[in-house]
Amino acid sequence: MALYVHKYGGSSVADADKIVNVARRIAAVHDQGHQIVTVVSAMGGTTDELIDLARTVSNEPDPRELDFLLSTGELVSITLLSMALRSLGYDAISLSGPQAGIRTDNSYGRARISQVDPDRISRELDAGRLVIVAGFQGLTPDDDVTTLGRGGSDTTAVALAAALGADRCDIYTDVEGIYTADPRVVANASKMPEVGYEEMLELAAAGAKMHPRSIELGAAYNVPIYVASSFVDATGTLIRQVSDDRQMEDRIKVTGIAYQSNVAKVTVCGVADRPGVAAGLFEPLSEAGINVDTIVQNTSADRTTTDISFTVTTDDLPRALRVIAPLETALGMGQVISDPTLASVSVVGSGMQNTPGYASRMFRILADGGINIDMITTSEIRISCIISRDQAQEAVRLLHQGFELDKSR
Amino acid sequence: MALYVHKYGGSSVADADKIVNVARRIAAVHDQGHQIVTVVSAMGGTTDELIDLARTVSNEPDPRELDFLLSTGELVSITLLSMALRSLGYDAISLSGPQAGIRTDNSYGRARISQVDPDRISRELDAGRLVIVAGFQGLTPDDDVTTLGRGGSDTTAVALAAALGADRCDIYTDVEGIYTADPRVVANASKMPEVGYEEMLELAAAGAKMHPRSIELGAAYNVPIYVASSFVDATGTLIRQVSDDRQMEDRIKVTGIAYQSNVAKVTVCGVADRPGVAAGLFEPLSEAGINVDTIVQNTSADRTTTDISFTVTTDDLPRALRVIAPLETALGMGQVISDPTLASVSVVGSGMQNTPGYASRMFRILADGGINIDMITTSEIRISCIISRDQAQEAVRLLHQGFELDKSR
Repeated sequence: MALYVHKYGGSSVADADKIVNVARRIAAVHDQGHQIVTVVSAMGGTTDELIDLARTVSNEPDPRELDFLLSTGELVSITLLSMALRSLGYDAISLSGPQAGIRTDNSYGRARISQVDPDRISRELDAGRLVIVAGFQGLTPDDDVTTLGRGGSDTTAVALAAALGADRCDIYTDVEGIYTADPRVVANASKMPEVGYEEMLELAAAGAKMHPRSIELGAAYNVPIYVASSFVDATGTLIRQVSDDRQMEDRIKVTGIAYQSNVAKVTVCGVADRPGVAAGLFEPLSEAGINVDTIVQNTSADRTTTDISFTVTTDDLPRALRVIAPLETALGMGQVISDPTLASVSVVGSGMQNTPGYASRMFRILADGGINIDMITTSEIRISCIISRDQAQEAVRLLHQGFELDKSR
Repeated sequence: MALYVHKYGGSSVADADKIVNVARRIAAVHDQGHQIVTVVSAMGGTTDELIDLARTVSNEPDPRELDFLLSTGELVSITLLSMALRSLGYDAISLSGPQAGIRTDNSYGRARISQVDPDRISRELDAGRLVIVAGFQGLTPDDDVTTLGRGGSDTTAVALAAALGADRCDIYTDVEGIYTADPRVVANASKMPEVGYEEMLELAAAGAKMHPRSIELGAAYNVPIYVASSFVDATGTLIRQVSDDRQMEDRIKVTGIAYQSNVAKVTVCGVADRPGVAAGLFEPLSEAGINVDTIVQNTSADRTTTDISFTVTTDDLPRALRVIAPLETALGMGQVISDPTLASVSVVGSGMQNTPGYASRMFRILADGGINIDMITTSEIRISCIISRDQAQEAVRLLHQGFELDKSR
């Protein structure tokens, strides 16, 4: 008997038929003699509807109240799924995030899980029940409801799998697995049977369908994560610890090409070049909950001022500019320029850090394609270039081909 | 500074405009320097929509899961109301029933409040906040969400007022107060400025707009309850302990005429006349959560069998008949006859118990109106007759006139 955590996203439970379909899939796992905890998102579209509803009474809904409101979306989907299972004759029980023991900090809208107390779930599993848990939500130390932000249900699922010591965490979604590039962009992208946590983390951070936080958690607690389709019966991708042997063997290998199309760049010109300036700029952004990705700083020729550029999502751009505006005097800022028409493309692969040739090969491929590079960042296993958004898909195709991912692997 | 608990029903928060209207009313009370806790029902129609949604995945939704699903309706209305208050510049916070400390037994769908722990509410009030509480819901000792059944939000409001030692509990609704008879039936029914708990209890039990449980609670904890319109600025009705002096003075007085139009009668003929038969019949009905109102038993001429008749709501009739069917052999039952076309009309007034003349006067008025009486029950301060439904409104009018309630009071 194994213990599995399964997660179904909003598109998988979007209507009654789909909910009954998910119920049948869960029942089948139970029938094979396994224990199963199922994490569910709100029915597709619900969260947006609730945000619209909030806007009918408030232009800027209070974050605590908004989280409390949004948390109802998952309560609807878990109770319906539990009812559907009971209709099929199975003993199911739905639990809210708080009931399931998900404890978080009080950063409303983007809370982080601080602790999981799985007692209630364990008790229900021991009683032979199919446990359905609301994803995306948790409880603060003050007994208030939070939401975990984008991709939160994936994070809930992996956190529960870690806390319960589950044998595997399955993420069922509307894609069939993790590909060498977005299959909607690169027709002959190939599905990877498995991928290491670190590479997946970079792929996710660079725009692949999963949220980096869930992968981080999986890596930290060594939870094997299986990504597959909830609609098609095809083998997905297993994200797991790749053994050292294997890493040696696969060392110099590009795993995949990822991209993000919602990138905006902000350049603060003529900032006084003295200690504390970067902190003075980025601390307020962080406090406002704005995720800053790439940061580039160049000291000017005269060494008295500097230009700082950074990227945020296009969604966050207006807020980022509002946060920066009042800093002008304190930081001795010059002009602030922003460009919301960018994208990032990334080449991800283990072992690239020791192989400088990969970066130059990437730049060559883009140059040959007539694609101008705006900013560059590199990590241990990723090289990312900020480019114009209208060239992003072409860049993905060229890189997929240039790094020979098109070939049968 | 006074502390008030206000309750707004679903029709008062049915859309964004109405929610903002309620927010303004709450803000006005706060501006007068008072503390206020507001209990809110789900937006009008929401509960029915959620029940319909449940039926898309299950013909007979599990009671625990259904309660959990229904509880989301109030979470939506409280968070929206709190957001609206914050938009107006007030420090508001919404609390679910469980967060507000409402503890119940685990009778899903009709849970009874066992205890109120008002610590969290008191803390928020002390912090100067306007507290918005979800009506209709609570938490079992096992940490599961329950709903309180029909009229549950009134009960939540009065229970909170009792636990907090509030100065008054205001129930704002779509009627302007308590009348001597339903003003839709009797055009010149008059609004009562005040009424005692006991009389209100009988009026409520006999069909007036409030739920008896909230009145019982108010009487037990001596919470003055004020019933008024949330739409019209008119004086409502205060339900309170009537002093002994006043009861003397008003002793022999009919307070009002009430009616219920959804009455069904079940007659079990030829039941063996031996001890335990009534218990054998009514225990299973009670366990099934079916509320039995009037019960009449007649022993037959030969003293070996008896007929038992009782009334339930027309909604409960099919279920009542299903519960009775398997008892046939055990109880030696004969034919079961049911009639779903009945109504009850009641004359309510303090002191009637010592004045037999009231009952005969009621029967005379009905007889003169050509209205046949099917069953009769009396309580300390109420006389009820079961009659044909199509004569109910006429009966109310005749009794209102016959007991001289039409006259200016």
